[in-house]
Amino acid sequence: MSDLIRRTIPVLRWAPRYTRAALADDALAAVIVTIMLIPQSLAYALIAGMPPEAGLYASILPLVAYTIFGTSTALAVGPVAVISLMTAATVGDFAARGSADYASVALALAFLTGLLLIAMGALRLGFLANFLSHPIMSAFITASGVLIAAGQMKHILGVEAEGDTLIDIAASLAAHAPATRWPTLALGAAVIGFLVFARSGLKPLLLRAGLHDRPAAMIARAAPLFAVFASIGAVAALGLDAKGVAIVGDTPKGFPPLAAPPFDPGLWRALLAPALLIAVIGYVESVSVAQMLAAKRNERVDLDQELIGLGAANLAAGVSGGFPVTGGFARSVVNFDAGARTPAAGGFAAIGISLAALYLTPLLHDLPRATLAATIIVAVLALVDIRAMRRTLRYSRSDFAAMAATVAGVFLFGVEAGVVAGVVLSILFLLHRASRPHSAIVGQVPGTQHFRNVRRHDVITSPSVVSLRIDGDFFFANARFIEERILEAARDTPGARHVVLMCSAVNVVDMTALEALETVNTRLKDRGVAFHLSEVKGPVMDKLKRTHFLEALTGAVHLSEFDAMRALDPLTFEAPRSAGIAAQ
Amino acid sequence: MSDLIRRTIPVLRWAPRYTRAALADDALAAVIVTIMLIPQSLAYALIAGMPPEAGLYASILPLVAYTIFGTSTALAVGPVAVISLMTAATVGDFAARGSADYASVALALAFLTGLLLIAMGALRLGFLANFLSHPIMSAFITASGVLIAAGQMKHILGVEAEGDTLIDIAASLAAHAPATRWPTLALGAAVIGFLVFARSGLKPLLLRAGLHDRPAAMIARAAPLFAVFASIGAVAALGLDAKGVAIVGDTPKGFPPLAAPPFDPGLWRALLAPALLIAVIGYVESVSVAQMLAAKRNERVDLDQELIGLGAANLAAGVSGGFPVTGGFARSVVNFDAGARTPAAGGFAAIGISLAALYLTPLLHDLPRATLAATIIVAVLALVDIRAMRRTLRYSRSDFAAMAATVAGVFLFGVEAGVVAGVVLSILFLLHRASRPHSAIVGQVPGTQHFRNVRRHDVITSPSVVSLRIDGDFFFANARFIEERILEAARDTPGARHVVLMCSAVNVVDMTALEALETVNTRLKDRGVAFHLSEVKGPVMDKLKRTHFLEALTGAVHLSEFDAMRALDPLTFEAPRSAGIAAQ
Repeated sequence: MSDLIRRTIPVLRWAPRYTRAALADDALAAVIVTIMLIPQSLAYALIAGMPPEAGLYASILPLVAYTIFGTSTALAVGPVAVISLMTAATVGDFAARGSADYASVALALAFLTGLLLIAMGALRLGFLANFLSHPIMSAFITASGVLIAAGQMKHILGVEAEGDTLIDIAASLAAHAPATRWPTLALGAAVIGFLVFARSGLKPLLLRAGLHDRPAAMIARAAPLFAVFASIGAVAALGLDAKGVAIVGDTPKGFPPLAAPPFDPGLWRALLAPALLIAVIGYVESVSVAQMLAAKRNERVDLDQELIGLGAANLAAGVSGGFPVTGGFARSVVNFDAGARTPAAGGFAAIGISLAALYLTPLLHDLPRATLAATIIVAVLALVDIRAMRRTLRYSRSDFAAMAATVAGVFLFGVEAGVVAGVVLSILFLLHRASRPHSAIVGQVPGTQHFRNVRRHDVITSPSVVSLRIDGDFFFANARFIEERILEAARDTPGARHVVLMCSAVNVVDMTALEALETVNTRLKDRGVAFHLSEVKGPVMDKLKRTHFLEALTGAVHLSEFDAMRALDPLTFEAPRSAGIAAQ
Repeated sequence: MSDLIRRTIPVLRWAPRYTRAALADDALAAVIVTIMLIPQSLAYALIAGMPPEAGLYASILPLVAYTIFGTSTALAVGPVAVISLMTAATVGDFAARGSADYASVALALAFLTGLLLIAMGALRLGFLANFLSHPIMSAFITASGVLIAAGQMKHILGVEAEGDTLIDIAASLAAHAPATRWPTLALGAAVIGFLVFARSGLKPLLLRAGLHDRPAAMIARAAPLFAVFASIGAVAALGLDAKGVAIVGDTPKGFPPLAAPPFDPGLWRALLAPALLIAVIGYVESVSVAQMLAAKRNERVDLDQELIGLGAANLAAGVSGGFPVTGGFARSVVNFDAGARTPAAGGFAAIGISLAALYLTPLLHDLPRATLAATIIVAVLALVDIRAMRRTLRYSRSDFAAMAATVAGVFLFGVEAGVVAGVVLSILFLLHRASRPHSAIVGQVPGTQHFRNVRRHDVITSPSVVSLRIDGDFFFANARFIEERILEAARDTPGARHVVLMCSAVNVVDMTALEALETVNTRLKDRGVAFHLSEVKGPVMDKLKRTHFLEALTGAVHLSEFDAMRALDPLTFEAPRSAGIAAQ
C-alpha cells in the first residue's frame, strides 16, 4: 500500500532527498521560466478566448499539482497553444466569448479533462500515447500553428474577424481588411519584427557585445517580456489607446478565485468527447517532451503516473479560474536548459506567477492586444515544421497520407476534425497491417533441421505435406486472413494429405482465432487432409488444452517443425548429416 | 476496364453460364425461402417500428440488387432482427413511431447505409470486418436477442410499454402488467408454444409419420407461415379483435412505392454515425454467414465486392419503401440447405414476395400482432448463445471481458452503446498488444550460426556486445516500446560497447519508428555505445537508404546476425564446427 502511495505521489520519493544545491538550480530555472511564462500565459488565454488573468491562474495551482504528482524533472506545465485553440473551439460551441458562461464552461472542460486523465491513469492506459504517430502529431501541431497565427491576424490589423477554419478566417480577414487600423498594425508589425530578430539575432549580438553565454541566452529569452513592457510604455507615452489600439484593460488583481466548476450533467455529457480529445492530445504532447528530456539525462518518466500528474494539474485549473493545461514544448526545454533538477522548479515558477498576479496586473491595463498577438504568432510559427513533411513524403507514403489528412482536416474543418482524421487513419493503417501478417510456405534447408520460406531459400518440399508459418499472434484482426491463408495453401498443393501450421512466432491465440483454427480443421477434414501444429509455445498449449480443439484436431501437435515433417514424410525430409542425400 | 465491370457486377460472370438445372434448384430454394421470409419480414418490420408492408418491400428490390451485385451463392438478404432493432433505436430519435416522418427517416437511413457500404467497397475496406471479433459479435447478437424478445413482450401481454434498455423495458412492462389482456396473452402463448415445438419436435414427428426427410424439413420450416394463417383464422372465427386482440389492420396492396429518400443535409449528418454502425454490423453479420456457407462448398466470397452488394441492396431499400437490410443467418442457411446454387435464388424469392405484396396483404388485416411478436421471440431467442460465453470465459479472459462489456452495454445503455463498447475494447486490446511486441536478447547456439533467446536456450553471450531481436514490424504503436527496450538492453549490460538490433522479423519501419531508431542511435552515442543493425530485409533497406539514418548510424548494417557478432567480438563468437571451442 505504501508502495502505491509513493508511486502515486512521487513528491514523497524525491522531497526527502531534496538538497540545497538542487534548490538553487530549481529556483534559478523557475525565475527564467516565470519570465517566459508571463507573456505566454496572457497570450494563450487570448487564444483560448479567456480573459488574460485566466492565463496566469492556469499557471499557478496546476504547476503546484504537477510538482506533487508528476514524474518529469524538466516538464513545465501550463497553457499551451494547441490545447488553448482546442479549448476555444469547444467552449465557443456552448457560450459567447467574453461571457461569464464562457469562463465557467472552460472550467468544467478543464476539470473533466483532469478527471479523464486520472481515470486513464488509474486504468494504466498510458500506452494509448503510442497510437498518435509522430507524423500525425507533427502535422497537427504545424497545421494548428498556422491556424492560430491566422486567427491572431485580426489583432495585428485591429479589425473584427472570426472563423474556426482557415478558409473562414481568411475570408473574414479579407472582408474586414479595409477597416485596418494603421497604428495597431504598425505596433504589431514592430513587435513581430523585434521578436523574430530576438529569436535568432539577439543572442549572437549580445555575445559579440561581450556578455557570457548564459546571461546572453537569458536576456534573449526575456525578449517577449521586454516587448510587453515596451508596448505598455508606448501606449502610455503616445496615447495609442486613444488612436484606436485595443488594450487589455482592467484585469483583476490577486490570487486565483477558488471555486468548484459548474456541475451540469447535460453540459458534462456534451463536453465528454472534446475533453477526451484534449486529454489525449495534451498527454501525447506533454509525454513526448518529457520523454525526450528524460532520455537526455538518462532518467525515465512513468507513462501511467504522467496521466495522474497532468490530470491533477487540470483538476487544479478547473477549480482555480483556469482552462485546460498540459506540458509545453518550448518552456520545458527552457526549464531543462536553465538547469531545473526536480519538479520543484515548477512549484517555484508558480510562486513567481502568483507574484505577477498579485502585483503586475494593474500594469497590464495598457498592454496592447496586438503585442500579445505578435507574441503568439512568432511562437506558433516556430512550431511549423515543413521539413518533417518533406522528409516523410520521401520516406513513407502512408505516413504522409496521414499527415496530409490531418493538415487538410485542421484547415478545412477545424482543429478537432483534423486530429480525429489523423488518428482514424492511423488506426486504419494499423488494422490493415495487423489483418495481414507475414506468412510463408516453408521447406527444409538441405542438411539441417531448419525450415525456411520456399520463396527466399533453396529448400526441400514434399508433394504430400505442406507447411505454413505465420509470423505473428493469431487474433481477431487476422483470424480470417489466417483461415483463408491455410486453406489456400492446401488448395495450391492438390496432392497434400497433411497441412502443418508452424506456430513458432505465436504468443497468443484468442477466441476468434481459435474458432478460425477449428473451422480450418473441419474444412480440411472434409477434403481428407489432416491438420497439424508444430512448435506451439507452452502458454499457448496450456490454453488450447482447456478447449476441445486438440481432441477434434485431425492431425497432431509436434514439438518441432522437423519432427512434424519427418514424421509425415520420412522419404522426403532427410535427417541432417545423414550419409545419403534424400531426393528433393 | 471490362475486368473491373465484371468484378463489380458479378451477375455478368455467372448469368451467361446459367443452366436449366441451376434454375430448377434456385427456384425450389426460392419457394422455401419465400415461405420463411413472409412472416419474418412482417415481424422484423414490427421490430424496426415500421408498418408490416415495409418488411415485404424490404424483401423485394434489395434481393434483386444483391442478385446483381453480390458474390455469395447462398446469402439471403432482407430485414434481420439486430439491424431492425438498431433501425428502431436510431429512427426513434428523429420521429415518432407510426408517423410518416418515421418511415421517411428509415428510408434515408437505409439509403445512407447503402452509400457508406458502397464507399467502403470502393475504398476496398473489406478488411474492416476483421475488427469485430467473434466473441463481441456473438455477445452482441445474444444481448440484442434478449433485448428484442423483451421489447416484444408488450405485444404478447397486449399492453403499452416502451424503452430502449432492458431495465426501462422491464420497468415499463412491470408497470403495465396489471392491464394484461388475457385473450392476447393466450394467443401469444399458444403461438410461442407451437413454434418452439415446431423448431425441435415437428420434423421428427413428420418423419415418424412416414414423410421423407426433405418434405418434413420443408413443412417444419413453414410452421411460422402456418401460425400466421391459423391466427388469422382464429381472429375471424372467434372475433378476437373485438375481444381486444390487436391486429395488423389495413395494409396497402401492390408493388413497393418507388421514391427518392428525403434529402435533408442536417438529417443526413445526424444519421451518419448510426448509419456507419449499421453498415459495419450488417456487413460483419452478413459476411460471416456468407463465408461460412462458401467454405462448405469450397467457394469464395469477395470481401470488397460484398460491400458493394450489400450497399446496392440498402440503396434499393431506401428508394422502395424499405429500411436497412443485410444477409440473415437463419434464412441463408435455409437457402443453402434448400439447394440454392446461384444468387438468382434471391431474385426468385423477390418474385415470391412481390406476389405476396400484391395478393396477400388483404389477408393480413386480421393478423394478430401477438402472432408476429411470438414469431420474433422464438426466432431471436434461438440466437442467444450462452454456451459461447461460457466457453470464452474458460478460454480467454480478455475476450470474455469484451463480451461482458458488450452485453452490459446493450442491456444498460441500448444496442448502439453495446457494440461501441465492444469495438472500443477490442481496439484497445489490439493496441495494447501491438504496443508490446515480443522481444528477446539473443546469443549464439554453440556450434551453429544461429542466435536464439537467451532465456530459452543455452547460448553464448558477450560482455561487450548485446543483441536484441524484436519480433514484429516497427511502427508508431510500438516505436516507443522499441526505443525503451533497446536502451534498457544497453543499460542492463554495463560493459556493452555495441548494440546489435536483429531485424529478421521486420517488414516495415514507419516514420515514427525511424525517428525512434534515430533517437536510440543518438542516446547510445552519448554513452559511447555503437548501434548496429543485422538481417535487414531488402525493401526495408531500400527505404532506409532514402534517409540520412544510415549515414548517422554509429555502427554498421550487417548481412547476418552471425556476421555482426563475429565482427564485433571474434573472441567470444565461434565459427561453427571449428576445431577449438571458444570460451563462453
